[in-house]
Amino acid sequence: MTKTTWRIGVAGLGVVGSELVNFLFERPRFAPGGVEARVTGVSARSRTAKRRTDIANLPWFDDPVALAKSPDNDIFVELMGGSDGPARAAVEAALAMGKPVVTANKALIAIHGRALAALAEATHAPLLFEAAVMGGTPAVKMLREAMVGDDVQVVAGILNGTCNYILSEMELGGRAFADVLAEAQRLGYAEAEPSMDVGGFDSAHKITILAALAFGAAPTYSAVEVAGIEDIELLDIRLAKDLGYRIKLLASASRSGEGVSVRVHPALVPLDHPLARTGGVLNALFMQGTRIGRIFIQGPGAGGSPTAAAAAADIADVMTGLVRPVFQSPAQTLTPIAPVDQAQTMGRVFVRLLVRDEPGVIASVTETLADGGVSIDSFLQKSIEGVSGVPIVLTTHDAPESVLNEAVRRMGQLPTLMAPPRVIRIARV
Amino acid sequence: MTKTTWRIGVAGLGVVGSELVNFLFERPRFAPGGVEARVTGVSARSRTAKRRTDIANLPWFDDPVALAKSPDNDIFVELMGGSDGPARAAVEAALAMGKPVVTANKALIAIHGRALAALAEATHAPLLFEAAVMGGTPAVKMLREAMVGDDVQVVAGILNGTCNYILSEMELGGRAFADVLAEAQRLGYAEAEPSMDVGGFDSAHKITILAALAFGAAPTYSAVEVAGIEDIELLDIRLAKDLGYRIKLLASASRSGEGVSVRVHPALVPLDHPLARTGGVLNALFMQGTRIGRIFIQGPGAGGSPTAAAAAADIADVMTGLVRPVFQSPAQTLTPIAPVDQAQTMGRVFVRLLVRDEPGVIASVTETLADGGVSIDSFLQKSIEGVSGVPIVLTTHDAPESVLNEAVRRMGQLPTLMAPPRVIRIARV
Repeated sequence: MTKTTWRIGVAGLGVVGSELVNFLFERPRFAPGGVEARVTGVSARSRTAKRRTDIANLPWFDDPVALAKSPDNDIFVELMGGSDGPARAAVEAALAMGKPVVTANKALIAIHGRALAALAEATHAPLLFEAAVMGGTPAVKMLREAMVGDDVQVVAGILNGTCNYILSEMELGGRAFADVLAEAQRLGYAEAEPSMDVGGFDSAHKITILAALAFGAAPTYSAVEVAGIEDIELLDIRLAKDLGYRIKLLASASRSGEGVSVRVHPALVPLDHPLARTGGVLNALFMQGTRIGRIFIQGPGAGGSPTAAAAAADIADVMTGLVRPVFQSPAQTLTPIAPVDQAQTMGRVFVRLLVRDEPGVIASVTETLADGGVSIDSFLQKSIEGVSGVPIVLTTHDAPESVLNEAVRRMGQLPTLMAPPRVIRIARV
Repeated sequence: MTKTTWRIGVAGLGVVGSELVNFLFERPRFAPGGVEARVTGVSARSRTAKRRTDIANLPWFDDPVALAKSPDNDIFVELMGGSDGPARAAVEAALAMGKPVVTANKALIAIHGRALAALAEATHAPLLFEAAVMGGTPAVKMLREAMVGDDVQVVAGILNGTCNYILSEMELGGRAFADVLAEAQRLGYAEAEPSMDVGGFDSAHKITILAALAFGAAPTYSAVEVAGIEDIELLDIRLAKDLGYRIKLLASASRSGEGVSVRVHPALVPLDHPLARTGGVLNALFMQGTRIGRIFIQGPGAGGSPTAAAAAADIADVMTGLVRPVFQSPAQTLTPIAPVDQAQTMGRVFVRLLVRDEPGVIASVTETLADGGVSIDSFLQKSIEGVSGVPIVLTTHDAPESVLNEAVRRMGQLPTLMAPPRVIRIARV
């Protein structure tokens, strides 16, 4: 590892790829020790697309796999995206020949992480993916390196800037989900096909990766319970606030005696909690270990410049000789995460009902809960202008989730209900 | 670097050292890849002192320098403290023979960092000090590795848990500084000789190290402007809160066209700012770079277990082959930080006066400021029970610090003043 120049191949020249190429043009000696990083090949879907970087003088590869295999670069940087197809083929090709890989591809690592780690470790090639989670905010490095040897209990936070922006704007502007989403699409904060973000799948890819690092397990995307924010109504945001909460899309991984639970779902967070105070496109994460205690980190979760900076930090790690298992333990020792039985999981929920204004409604709701063994923490009935029917919201005390689900199911059968009950978990962070 | 066992010598067996030895007893294979870390020698002031770890079966060294030089350990861990004396001698001895050093000694790195880095780089020995700043919260790793190649503009935060605890308790309990300090000493949160903490010097050591990492400069302790919290009165805390601020001991390093400014001083932070919401013994830090943007990190800043975890993370970094310059650039290229001229520094201040209740007092105060070219942002006159005289507090708009200082000096000459003006900067974070 006494190279004085590392030659970099970059596949994918979108916002992040263009920023990275520009950065390496401007600061080829950015890594400590003055070693040089020089871009020696690029690949993208279109050679002539309009982009923020001038690639006219760089060797061009139509096929990213050919770039990955080229002897003219020492590190392959994959910024194309997609869990399969060319991204996976190119990363596999580079690792198979022992070439270090830096990627921002969360889907690829979440779904094929264990197999890729095994390949990387077999050929002693570093496989780094800081840019895959929280953009420029180094969540991966913190879990992998700073909390090494700690018994991590919980990792939980806000990992999708698009959802956080939409929820923040709904509250600030008093606007409906569809309205804010359409605006976010116009502004380029949300994709034309938004389900990867608003459906919670992007967060699920990211928490899969963090859970694997936190618990020394195989990335197990299939074990993640995923719910998105599409059904969150402005009414819920307002009523939650009346009770002292803000609704966030929470991604969490926690370990208990029963196993590991990995989830993405909307959750109520107390208004004075640091996660509730993480607004707009920011990301934030709590990490809790038995030795280090509780660390909170907040920063830009996306964007070309921060994400390119994270990829550059990974490139510097390769150049300065970092050699670690891809996850905490060698790939062949990693076991998948088995979902925890919901009956064993305790929780609290926020329930919002829309009922007809008739005598005895409150009694019927509270009796249904009491019969189900669920006790109420707070209760609010409130008429809201423009909303037909009477909204009732309540929060419960701790109960097994299976008990909560059954009580809500029975509440859904009450004849006074004008719509199915809306249930949102209260965060345990 | 294909060792299967790394032998660890630990000098200093206080709270942190004992926790580290216990951790290595319990988890010798904590580092990724299953390589073993085994304690093969210890040294401390007293062999028989009561401590939380059993060292009866470990080779004992009366002299830490002999432990540092011993061929029976591969990594020397220095947890004794003190910028000179045995700690410095032992670290120098280890580095001189090319042995990796892990230390929690902020004073040593802040004062002798450049010379030690030069020694370490000459013998290719890693010199790591994550545990020196913010305990288990990886500020050093973030600046050194995650923000590599970024142009860092500002690093600012709360780096001393003792001061933060005292200020928090003064506000919560409505108690005087001396009262809370005495209690903190009884509880073991503050030293019998508290000036290192409350005088701001501990924070100054830490911000010296962070500034060097952030700006690729030599650690320059002598360039830090230091003020502690000894003179903060409960009255100031209360009046600041009336104006929407909380008083914190702020350590900051910022770069501008005029140069780098490194400072520790009490500062007013807006109540809804994350630093204002960092209470008790927590530490917190903002890092801002042109590429990554603004990252906030918060966590336990001290304590045996988190600090030992940070030292363990450094040990794992040595074991997995990390080789970087100690600061961002090779030691011989590091230049010291030159203090910025105050006349060039803009700022806002909070001024608290105690005046006799006479006609024309407000006019004389505001005229003095106006004559000095300082404009007022907010102004509050308020009688407070138990306080003789009338407190007046005001906050200014931005002005050169030299102009503010002169205006305050002139205010100090007003005949109606019962005490010298108290001036506290308003944070620019």
